[in-house]
Amino acid sequence: MIYSFLNDYSESAHPDILAALQDSHLQQHTGYGFDDYSEQVRENLRQQLGNDDQHNDIAIHFGITGTQANLVCIAAMLSPIDGIIACTSGHIAVNEAGAIEATGHKVITTHATDGKLTVEAIEEIRQRHAFKPHVVRAKAVYISNATELGTVYSYDELAQLSAYCRDHDMYLFIDGARLGAALASDAQQAQVTLADIAKFADIFWLGGTKMGAMFGEVIIIPNKQLAIDFNIYLKQHGGLLAKGYLLALQFDILLRDNKYLEMCRHANSMAQQLATALQGKGCELFVKTQSNQVFAILPQALIDYLEDYFAFYTWEKLDDDRSVVRFVTSWATPQAQIDRFVAVLEAFSGK
Amino acid sequence: MIYSFLNDYSESAHPDILAALQDSHLQQHTGYGFDDYSEQVRENLRQQLGNDDQHNDIAIHFGITGTQANLVCIAAMLSPIDGIIACTSGHIAVNEAGAIEATGHKVITTHATDGKLTVEAIEEIRQRHAFKPHVVRAKAVYISNATELGTVYSYDELAQLSAYCRDHDMYLFIDGARLGAALASDAQQAQVTLADIAKFADIFWLGGTKMGAMFGEVIIIPNKQLAIDFNIYLKQHGGLLAKGYLLALQFDILLRDNKYLEMCRHANSMAQQLATALQGKGCELFVKTQSNQVFAILPQALIDYLEDYFAFYTWEKLDDDRSVVRFVTSWATPQAQIDRFVAVLEAFSGK
Amino acid sequence: MIYSFLNDYSESAHPDILAALQDSHLQQHTGYGFDDYSEQVRENLRQQLGNDDQHNDIAIHFGITGTQANLVCIAAMLSPIDGIIACTSGHIAVNEAGAIEATGHKVITTHATDGKLTVEAIEEIRQRHAFKPHVVRAKAVYISNATELGTVYSYDELAQLSAYCRDHDMYLFIDGARLGAALASDAQQAQVTLADIAKFADIFWLGGTKMGAMFGEVIIIPNKQLAIDFNIYLKQHGGLLAKGYLLALQFDILLRDNKYLEMCRHANSMAQQLATALQGKGCELFVKTQSNQVFAILPQALIDYLEDYFAFYTWEKLDDDRSVVRFVTSWATPQAQIDRFVAVLEAFSGK
Amino acid sequence: MIYSFLNDYSESAHPDILAALQDSHLQQHTGYGFDDYSEQVRENLRQQLGNDDQHNDIAIHFGITGTQANLVCIAAMLSPIDGIIACTSGHIAVNEAGAIEATGHKVITTHATDGKLTVEAIEEIRQRHAFKPHVVRAKAVYISNATELGTVYSYDELAQLSAYCRDHDMYLFIDGARLGAALASDAQQAQVTLADIAKFADIFWLGGTKMGAMFGEVIIIPNKQLAIDFNIYLKQHGGLLAKGYLLALQFDILLRDNKYLEMCRHANSMAQQLATALQGKGCELFVKTQSNQVFAILPQALIDYLEDYFAFYTWEKLDDDRSVVRFVTSWATPQAQIDRFVAVLEAFSGK
Repeated sequence: MIYSFLNDYSESAHPDILAALQDSHLQQHTGYGFDDYSEQVRENLRQQLGNDDQHNDIAIHFGITGTQANLVCIAAMLSPIDGIIACTSGHIAVNEAGAIEATGHKVITTHATDGKLTVEAIEEIRQRHAFKPHVVRAKAVYISNATELGTVYSYDELAQLSAYCRDHDMYLFIDGARLGAALASDAQQAQVTLADIAKFADIFWLGGTKMGAMFGEVIIIPNKQLAIDFNIYLKQHGGLLAKGYLLALQFDILLRDNKYLEMCRHANSMAQQLATALQGKGCELFVKTQSNQVFAILPQALIDYLEDYFAFYTWEKLDDDRSVVRFVTSWATPQAQIDRFVAVLEAFSGK
Repeated sequence: MIYSFLNDYSESAHPDILAALQDSHLQQHTGYGFDDYSEQVRENLRQQLGNDDQHNDIAIHFGITGTQANLVCIAAMLSPIDGIIACTSGHIAVNEAGAIEATGHKVITTHATDGKLTVEAIEEIRQRHAFKPHVVRAKAVYISNATELGTVYSYDELAQLSAYCRDHDMYLFIDGARLGAALASDAQQAQVTLADIAKFADIFWLGGTKMGAMFGEVIIIPNKQLAIDFNIYLKQHGGLLAKGYLLALQFDILLRDNKYLEMCRHANSMAQQLATALQGKGCELFVKTQSNQVFAILPQALIDYLEDYFAFYTWEKLDDDRSVVRFVTSWATPQAQIDRFVAVLEAFSGK
Repeated sequence: MIYSFLNDYSESAHPDILAALQDSHLQQHTGYGFDDYSEQVRENLRQQLGNDDQHNDIAIHFGITGTQANLVCIAAMLSPIDGIIACTSGHIAVNEAGAIEATGHKVITTHATDGKLTVEAIEEIRQRHAFKPHVVRAKAVYISNATELGTVYSYDELAQLSAYCRDHDMYLFIDGARLGAALASDAQQAQVTLADIAKFADIFWLGGTKMGAMFGEVIIIPNKQLAIDFNIYLKQHGGLLAKGYLLALQFDILLRDNKYLEMCRHANSMAQQLATALQGKGCELFVKTQSNQVFAILPQALIDYLEDYFAFYTWEKLDDDRSVVRFVTSWATPQAQIDRFVAVLEAFSGK
Repeated sequence: MIYSFLNDYSESAHPDILAALQDSHLQQHTGYGFDDYSEQVRENLRQQLGNDDQHNDIAIHFGITGTQANLVCIAAMLSPIDGIIACTSGHIAVNEAGAIEATGHKVITTHATDGKLTVEAIEEIRQRHAFKPHVVRAKAVYISNATELGTVYSYDELAQLSAYCRDHDMYLFIDGARLGAALASDAQQAQVTLADIAKFADIFWLGGTKMGAMFGEVIIIPNKQLAIDFNIYLKQHGGLLAKGYLLALQFDILLRDNKYLEMCRHANSMAQQLATALQGKGCELFVKTQSNQVFAILPQALIDYLEDYFAFYTWEKLDDDRSVVRFVTSWATPQAQIDRFVAVLEAFSGK
């Protein structure tokens, strides 16, 4: 039997979410995010994000998919003459099927360091984009945390990016498809909280799909300018669920007692064990494992052997013999499958 | 206690769907619509739609919301210089927050008869849009069935629209937010089947949201030209659910033994009872009740009285004393609430 | 020989403009609107528009075509969730080949009175568009002056529209394809000046194409918010001419001593004579002739007879025997052709 | 006095063009490209492009600016889910103010060799963009000839690109802002003609602005699929000049006896002299001078010295002492200014 480490959305949802669905059955709800569940999640989050003037009435909306959260946030953020900076491996730069361009915006790409965008790289872009009127304005910065490579921004890195953006009248947008995994990461020198993220970003989202929801992302907009009539943007792009309470209901479960962090810590821990096992067998990591994704450099023979037991993604062929492969763990990954992975590795070594 | 007739998406989902969710729990699935559930629903539908060359490999995809199904289908159908004809009350013309224009397309509006578009109205538009290069091409026709007014196209009306479109190199697109209700309607002189719809339309969708799914719409594309790489369009607009099997799983339940038709027949029957009750008390209908929506002309005193017991939508104020109100029933509407409605009507008359 | 009354852009340009082109020959100029000619036209216009704080540094740019001026102004004015109100006969609503929708915006149409938009019609739309988040915001109002029917807004009508827009946080945009003809019209009860237009509108343009320039439109932006980086919008839509000085050079001639008004008065006077002649022969006007367009209701026999001598446009067929036809005069229309028209009319009557 | 080598659009137009404008004065013309001048230019070009079935009715249109020609061609060429490949220095990738993205399309960038795109670079992109449905389709290839660096594609390079595109169902689009300079270049091993370009490309344009027209570009569409209703695309983007005959009239002059080639040869020769003079003084060229642009690496002292006599553009700072500068010559560059440049260089050396 093949167990899949292909991604963190192979299983439907955490049992508590399915149970909550049952409990709410046949009640009538108001549509389009005006329901009680949604209001309650908003209230809970606002308390968590701070009770200063900036945050106690912070706008909070619910999106359905990550691509949509990204495109809607960017549509709401940018003028037609604005572009958004991302690193070349950024999700909006490569794997959103042109979603950002379809809303009319240029994704301005630059190099990353360990999958992370730096102030220096942004500054280069900003200078080049002063050549008006021949270029789009470099008006926003896109990062994902955790990144596409599973790396995690430190408190200081986030603080620097945020300060730079504010100094230069740019927005900082954080794609949170795996924000839970980042917040749950041991790798951060200083612990970063959801409240910190809300302090640093102008707009960001916390993804449910990859941390145990059936689907759904909660979009949080600290910058009040970007929050005006945001739900019309959602509606315009087909992102306003008629039964919006189904989104809130799921986040109600995930956010209760920070259950999502606990679930993400499990995923991260499974990844860590997997990375350690590979390193123990002499496999080099492509980048440090900081969340629930493991990127490792494996010989082809090992890849072939593993594929009889596990599904995973070959990220990049390095040469005839070696490739970077990706293993993704999740809230649902059983310890038993990690143990099995270790055993299979042993078996391969023993051949 | 206020019971809501505001719409047909107040309740989450049919119990069988919630049960199926439980059953599939913790299984691993392939993402983005490449899973077994999706394949199975496609197979079942294809058998139902006909086994001629045109239909036995018909493209079938899953969307999440109605606005999105509409915008993605139109994006996939039209060139940038093409517009789509709809009646002035058409959903894409008024209540999609500019979703179609946001994909760059003009919605060309014309008058309707009982909420339905006619060949004559389309022909007027087509002639006006021959004035090249100053106008967009009138390339597609949008109808919803049931319509925004709950009326239902007859077999002949659909056949005429379809023939007209084919004769003039235009596409016929059917918004099926309430297609179930239309197919279940007694009002159709000749019974129309899903296979007929697939024969008449170039592209259409069957909505789950308003007939007992948590969410989701199945998009069916009889015209092979419009089907090419359709899932990239979905992805580009954020309409490709990572856990796409959740969509298919729901339609698997709804389509099994045409369960959705049975559920829609219930909704229609509830609406019919409600309409009959109103007529019995001397209230005129604004349009004939043909599916699960009742549009009636009510005096203000009755509206005020009913509002203590039921929620419903005031559609249009006719004069100081009378308004058109809308009551929507659904698969979940209990007979008891209809009986209560009748009783409340009686009580008002007896005052 | 057929003389054309089809439109006001049949002849290339006023002789003074061609002469100025010769004079500037082989000089080197800075590109993209940063040249001395452009600066000089800006200065001249600013003095004319008023030396209060609002207008003495008003942003002024040069566009190339009318469609482009419209689409660029609207792109710069609206958020993606905003629509613009126009009357059903408005140029952006019918004859711009979907240019506005191609920038993502809905043109919200409403009825006109004599080709003119009224505050009452706008108010209806505004109320309907309060149904958030299901509709676009009705954020701007589009009028053209003179209108598509050649009618002209009075001072009071403009003042009311402007006041209404400011009261409701909406922009007023004036398409000035034939603004010269409107400003030169005798029909206005109170004389309206370019400075008045700049006071009433948030953004507007004065068209050169139809009043003796080879091409070109000057875009004037009294609302400072809409002026930010406007030339990037022009560039993005291909509306920034490399040799921008060619645009300014033409407007320098047209604006000198209000030469354009003198030219437009000629055109209007030719139209007036033509209208009077038609009325003298018993032909009813479709609308009052207030600028350089004559809309008259003619019997088919007369239309057929005239077509041997003149080209003109049949606007609308009224019945089997009568049609509305349009005659357009221009700065270049010779008195001799009007006299010939009168003579041809006489000849027809004498048959 | 400062003479400008900043670009090739500083002077208005060739004297013959201004003379032709005078000659056509006060004639009446049909608008929007349906006039006799336009038809005549089309006929002349068709004869030049070949009288096989593919080319004897080739679609030919007139655009106004280069940005617009690019955006309209791309809008007409691509589906919403398609991207276009360009090298990182390509004009559509950097200096069009997001014009392509504003039409909804991703510009997929890759590395260039001497400013030129290679089949190898395209193949890499094509393979990466097979990852459906997560990426846009790599459907077209954009090159400019001459390139942004003034280099020129050889016959073989063009033939290879064209063959590759046809083999892989991709379109080849050639931006011809400086196509005249390329066709007039001595650098091409095998002489390339306009007919060759029409054979290789699916769609391309020949720019007038930079070779002696006041403005205007002629768009040629060998691929019949891309030609359908092309003028609606022009109109939609504000690129259809009412007085379109002004565009054709200019190209009539430029194309007569290949006058444009003669003018471009002059420009290229001026550039060659300038390059030779710089090399004679020990300055290295950044790339070989193959058309009317010279990119040379100059010490700061020389740059400072030259700036008292000539205007030119500093392209890129290499280090504290040296920069790449760009000199552009044109049809209007007098031999006397080249001689003066040589003398100034001498004077600098003699210091």
